[in-house]
Amino acid sequence: MPIVTIQVTREGTTPGAASVTVEEKAALIKGSSELLRDVLGKPLEATFVVIEEVDTDNWGWGGLPVQEFRRRRASQTG
Amino acid sequence: MPIVTIQVTREGTTPGAASVTVEEKAALIKGSSELLRDVLGKPLEATFVVIEEVDTDNWGWGGLPVQEFRRRRASQTG
Amino acid sequence: MPIVTIQVTREGTTPGAASVTVEEKAALIKGSSELLRDVLGKPLEATFVVIEEVDTDNWGWGGLPVQEFRRRRASQTG
Amino acid sequence: MPIVTIQVTREGTTPGAASVTVEEKAALIKGSSELLRDVLGKPLEATFVVIEEVDTDNWGWGGLPVQEFRRRRASQTG
Amino acid sequence: MPIVTIQVTREGTTPGAASVTVEEKAALIKGSSELLRDVLGKPLEATFVVIEEVDTDNWGWGGLPVQEFRRRRASQTG
Amino acid sequence: MPIVTIQVTREGTTPGAASVTVEEKAALIKGSSELLRDVLGKPLEATFVVIEEVDTDNWGWGGLPVQEFRRRRASQTG
Repeated sequence: MPIVTIQVTREGTTPGAASVTVEEKAALIKGSSELLRDVLGKPLEATFVVIEEVDTDNWGWGGLPVQEFRRRRASQTG
Repeated sequence: MPIVTIQVTREGTTPGAASVTVEEKAALIKGSSELLRDVLGKPLEATFVVIEEVDTDNWGWGGLPVQEFRRRRASQTG
Repeated sequence: MPIVTIQVTREGTTPGAASVTVEEKAALIKGSSELLRDVLGKPLEATFVVIEEVDTDNWGWGGLPVQEFRRRRASQTG
Repeated sequence: MPIVTIQVTREGTTPGAASVTVEEKAALIKGSSELLRDVLGKPLEATFVVIEEVDTDNWGWGGLPVQEFRRRRASQTG
Repeated sequence: MPIVTIQVTREGTTPGAASVTVEEKAALIKGSSELLRDVLGKPLEATFVVIEEVDTDNWGWGGLPVQEFRRRRASQTG
Repeated sequence: MPIVTIQVTREGTTPGAASVTVEEKAALIKGSSELLRDVLGKPLEATFVVIEEVDTDNWGWGGLPVQEFRRRRASQTG
């Protein structure tokens, strides 16, 4: 009966996409359920997966909202 | 000081309802708080309840998005 | 496919009990699963319940570890 | 690698504000990351912060939706 | 910056093992981090994984503690 | 009614300490409760704090158990 919770920022991975797509979500669900089956022998039917999308304003890293953190890091390494 | 977190899919239980209703949420809050009082003696005022509604695209079961899982299961047993 | 998470302090409710008992846990599982069935029509088999016991040192209320908070509140109202 | 999750009701703290502001979120991220650095020596870059805003209908206290709980408490103490 | 939380019962998958092994945990960490990289393009360094092991007494399914649920299901299908 | 959850690895911050100390936990509870009061005006009595200590085997970063991740990073930068 595993439960897998995947928290990601609500943003797209390709130009024009504003969020994780339905196909990407299905791939995360499939991949993580199969991982539990392959590693721990859990039947697919026994695993729940919950994907939580978090607005970038609500995600912090390095003491900053994540978008600001990325900007600073990019300017440092540029 | 118990905390009860209830995660459900965001969908209605009756025709025409697209999500859990305010009355259903109030019933979940009342019922779970009373359960903690009756089983563990926790005062109602000491219990927090958080209801998290999850889009059906974001909920996985059986390695599939839950709507797809339900369709396949229904067609098998039909 | 609801998931109910119940977080409580790890302590007994009766003299001599140092933690939540197996019987109390079973009652919490039964009660919360039946609540989801009665309010939202979820079959019992579709609900997972996870009980998390938290050491009292690790639980804060009122800006204090909970045992200290209780002592102060008791001395105020006594 | 600490993870700090802050759950609050989705409502404003000042007249006219319907939710937590971007500035308040940044202050929560900064403050909690610095707390982990100051108390446990964790580098800012090692801490993630996730802010979850919960609709007031979805938050229970005292066995009631929180807005109803506040109304009753206010009328009692008034 | 994804966070993956994997909740499983604390029990072994092979005879003699009383819990998830260190090797199995490492495989879960590797597999879920690679999944986020492959599906969403997240660098491995940006993903945290937290594995939570839950005592079987604390996990409910079908309105029962999970061990009891398994016994009944096994006797039904046997 | 905020809830603050702080997840950290179970390890000491000073020589000889194998875990987060009671004093450090109290400081985390005090600091995060005061943060919610100062930023959002939440009364101290309305905030719950839960500290979750996670075994280092159960925490992943960079696709590896965190101790292994630290060793590799240290050898790279050394």
